[in-house]
Amino acid sequence: MRIANRWRTHHCAQLRAADVGKNVRLCGWVDRRRDHGGLVFVDLRDREGVSQIVFHPEEHPETAEIGKALHAEDLVQVEGQVARRPEGTENSGLATGEIELVAHSVRLLGSCPPLPFPLDAVVENEELRLGFRFLDLRRRKMLENLQLRHRISRAVREYLDAQGFLEVETPILSKSTPEGARDFLVPSRLIPGSFYALPQAPQQYKQLLMVAGIERYYQIARCFRDEDLRADRQPEFTQVDLEASFVEPEDIQFWVEGMLRKIFRDVLDVDLTLPFRRMSYREAMDRYGSDKPDLRFGIDLYDVGEIFRESDLKVFRAVLDRGGVVKAVNGKGLAHIAASELTGLEDLARSLGGKGLAYVRVESSGWKSPIGKFLTAGQRDALARTLGATEGDLLLFAADQWDLACEILGRVRLRLADLSGERKGNTEWKFLWVTDFPLLAYDREEGHWTSMHHPFTRPHAEDLPLLDEGRYGELRALAYDIVLNGTELGGGSIRIHEADLQQKIFSVLGIDAETQEQRFGHLLKAFRYGAPPHGGVALGLDRLVMLLAGAESIRDVIAFPKNRHGMDPLTGSPSRVEAKQLRELKITTGRGDA
Amino acid sequence: MRIANRWRTHHCAQLRAADVGKNVRLCGWVDRRRDHGGLVFVDLRDREGVSQIVFHPEEHPETAEIGKALHAEDLVQVEGQVARRPEGTENSGLATGEIELVAHSVRLLGSCPPLPFPLDAVVENEELRLGFRFLDLRRRKMLENLQLRHRISRAVREYLDAQGFLEVETPILSKSTPEGARDFLVPSRLIPGSFYALPQAPQQYKQLLMVAGIERYYQIARCFRDEDLRADRQPEFTQVDLEASFVEPEDIQFWVEGMLRKIFRDVLDVDLTLPFRRMSYREAMDRYGSDKPDLRFGIDLYDVGEIFRESDLKVFRAVLDRGGVVKAVNGKGLAHIAASELTGLEDLARSLGGKGLAYVRVESSGWKSPIGKFLTAGQRDALARTLGATEGDLLLFAADQWDLACEILGRVRLRLADLSGERKGNTEWKFLWVTDFPLLAYDREEGHWTSMHHPFTRPHAEDLPLLDEGRYGELRALAYDIVLNGTELGGGSIRIHEADLQQKIFSVLGIDAETQEQRFGHLLKAFRYGAPPHGGVALGLDRLVMLLAGAESIRDVIAFPKNRHGMDPLTGSPSRVEAKQLRELKITTGRGDA
Repeated sequence: MRIANRWRTHHCAQLRAADVGKNVRLCGWVDRRRDHGGLVFVDLRDREGVSQIVFHPEEHPETAEIGKALHAEDLVQVEGQVARRPEGTENSGLATGEIELVAHSVRLLGSCPPLPFPLDAVVENEELRLGFRFLDLRRRKMLENLQLRHRISRAVREYLDAQGFLEVETPILSKSTPEGARDFLVPSRLIPGSFYALPQAPQQYKQLLMVAGIERYYQIARCFRDEDLRADRQPEFTQVDLEASFVEPEDIQFWVEGMLRKIFRDVLDVDLTLPFRRMSYREAMDRYGSDKPDLRFGIDLYDVGEIFRESDLKVFRAVLDRGGVVKAVNGKGLAHIAASELTGLEDLARSLGGKGLAYVRVESSGWKSPIGKFLTAGQRDALARTLGATEGDLLLFAADQWDLACEILGRVRLRLADLSGERKGNTEWKFLWVTDFPLLAYDREEGHWTSMHHPFTRPHAEDLPLLDEGRYGELRALAYDIVLNGTELGGGSIRIHEADLQQKIFSVLGIDAETQEQRFGHLLKAFRYGAPPHGGVALGLDRLVMLLAGAESIRDVIAFPKNRHGMDPLTGSPSRVEAKQLRELKITTGRGDA
Repeated sequence: MRIANRWRTHHCAQLRAADVGKNVRLCGWVDRRRDHGGLVFVDLRDREGVSQIVFHPEEHPETAEIGKALHAEDLVQVEGQVARRPEGTENSGLATGEIELVAHSVRLLGSCPPLPFPLDAVVENEELRLGFRFLDLRRRKMLENLQLRHRISRAVREYLDAQGFLEVETPILSKSTPEGARDFLVPSRLIPGSFYALPQAPQQYKQLLMVAGIERYYQIARCFRDEDLRADRQPEFTQVDLEASFVEPEDIQFWVEGMLRKIFRDVLDVDLTLPFRRMSYREAMDRYGSDKPDLRFGIDLYDVGEIFRESDLKVFRAVLDRGGVVKAVNGKGLAHIAASELTGLEDLARSLGGKGLAYVRVESSGWKSPIGKFLTAGQRDALARTLGATEGDLLLFAADQWDLACEILGRVRLRLADLSGERKGNTEWKFLWVTDFPLLAYDREEGHWTSMHHPFTRPHAEDLPLLDEGRYGELRALAYDIVLNGTELGGGSIRIHEADLQQKIFSVLGIDAETQEQRFGHLLKAFRYGAPPHGGVALGLDRLVMLLAGAESIRDVIAFPKNRHGMDPLTGSPSRVEAKQLRELKITTGRGDA
């Protein structure tokens, strides 16, 4: 690594006891300055680390004067001699802890005014941090996050390169196909009235690459979605995108597992056990009430409908009669949580659209529960057996349509894990593939079928007859999500590669033939020229880096993120532009001409 | 590399004599089908290569029937037994040339209609090629271009990683600073009337990263310029972008040279000799009439003003009296080129704004030249000595202001090299650093000073007094271009890192204080917080790949390029969008509301 030139001879983490006596030159920022025993000490910091500089007022009075006046984050060039630190003052926690640099001369390369916020403490005001991102990124943790991101990207590339994947850059100036999220648009100047769209994903391009015979493609790709920004969303984000031909789900899963194993080994020195567990969507919902279950803890959901079907609890029986289910979960040892906590769980259930939660506190004196009196001793025994309930447990019940009951208890499950301390601070890494998602879901509000993943997802071959029978809700997709500790890292599917099947799916989704041709004509055309079977996956890089960095927000692993209004407080982007620019694009804004 | 699954057991370049007797399954496209001696032969192609399939009508009649009906680019799955090719029919030019696959069964995975153009011949109609890019990319050469691009990117990353450069992703949704080329704009929906701009380069972000202490940054970055498209321009392109702190030009040049050496070694197995030659802008213009001279051949330019100053050639003397120059070049052995060729050179000179060219054909009978009669024998001898002219040479003269005379003869020089056969097909790799560009150039049309590189370029320290004296044209920049065989691969500079110097330069460029703050406030702010000295460089990846691939156009090294109208004929991008999309963005287009 080339360092030495006229600016400096070493970086700030380079000097050792063996260098004692050498005349050297360092450049760096004042990390800390302290006066002690008539001397001035400065911790000088660059990207690599810290060296202690000592200023001797008697030997180098002018230099010491400058040293005394230094402030945090002043940038200086220091020349001097490497000396061994006096015995007892070594710092074994520092690479350069045995030595210090006795300053002979110092030059202020750039002074720094008082800092808008401290760099060595947590700062809650993120707007301020983003407005001074060039300072915020000087924090050691932020630098480490960017370094971690780089190492993860490198591990991804090394693994996929070795597996014969070809990195191909696909266009950012792309075509609007408003199926998924909202597109960002780019007005064309050369063809007024026309727009490029920024890609939500390179989905169609990578499928075209498969038709082109590329066979194994990847890209660490920038993607864009013009959505209202929630806590952890960014208008632009990065995904590890890959696609391969002549493959089955197992092949894609093999590659993702190998890639993640390499990342964890290279970056965290953690050895992952492969293959990861697989679970169908149905089982994940049934057992954990989530399509991205956190498996760092148990707390299973049970179907207890059969027990309640014979009980006197009419509200539950009514649900069962309408085709619903009764599901239950056991909060081990949580019988004595506060009433307010129980109310919170009930509110949670209602906020999701449920009617509430039934509960049982299993106490030494017996069941304390509003529903106890509707149950026979035999029914209570059956429930206790099914749920493995013993004294001190808290049982919670949801009666509703299957998907809603699952969802409610899935969320309750996470809260119970918080209460029992099994979630926060749990440093296990629990990976899981969730498979066999439904292909289509009926959108009651919009009154039509929508794709659970996207319209290019392939149904199970044996479910294809259901398509002709109009039993759309029963079609299973050859789709798979990769989940880590309850977070969806990414997902993918085997794709449709036949024009006629693709058109059939478009039609079910309510896209008429003309619109199909307008938006997807290129793909349908390609599918008619010997298109290979293919599939792929995409993983969110920002989220993966965040999890590995132990960061609180994806904004902490992105160099220049946008805030919740899609703005960059540092550059002031987006901004007004010159009238001339809009004239050239032949567009006008709503402002002023309303 | 994982290949085997239910689709295939091997790829099409994998089988060898050692596999004879094995039952295997291949997938691929029909590259060629021919009937010979009652058998049907198919060259089956996948990304890795080709295997010969043979269909035996007698042993597998049904399979052979399908084989007989196969067309070019049909996609098939073939099962059969590996056999040794009959003696005398081996193909030593093919990895699988010793074997063939005897087809037991075949499955048509996707049939292909008649091709819109042949895949094994040059197709001039690029619009058609782009419209069927998924077929066009199936050509072996196009695949090789994409593979080469990948290997170049990989070499870049490996080198820069090893040199301690940190890969950082900077925003695509960026801020409009309309200094350089025209920006692509992206309307913001959340802040109506505001626009993001797509970055022309990550210039300001990488400078902010230097202020943040990242010290060594790189990115293989997508950049965007909304310019009228010339032959070899794309609205989006990729550059290898890097920046480092505490550096001098030599450091950046060291890294670029090391990177290029690694690329050439890894990709072409060519060993470059380092360091590359360096030449000032002044010398490059003086000697070769270009700031990106092609050094694969000589043909120097000479200043012959002193000789003409004493001559009777009044038009030349008038130019000299006005402060101009007379420059000359010797086309060795080209005395006998056609008159039409000479006319062409004169037209070239005039098209650049010159008044024409004077010429001398040095023949056995003496000088044949319209200007001969104005020269004494001594002047002729002096010219011949200076230009090394001997019988059979063609001497060409331009008299004009220095820069124009240089430019004209620089272009003439290239044409002479074409005529003498020293240019086309010359397979040398001649690298060159051109340094010390003028910092500023006066734009006569616009009536103000402009940056030769960009406004962040640092002037030579010893030239700084000229800035205060208003002698802007004399300022030299700490800028450097890297040139290969007459093509500019990239360029860079040491940057300004002081707010006051940056503001001074902005002012010289005619950017008033308010506009400075609006557009560059973030950079000026950052420069006040201990900004380190820094510099960097950017190399055009598309052009580099094109040169190494020996491709004719950058469109041949980009998977999905735009055509000359900024359009993708395959997807039809840019396109009209739905009225709802524009309403959400609160913009209207000129169409229909004029």
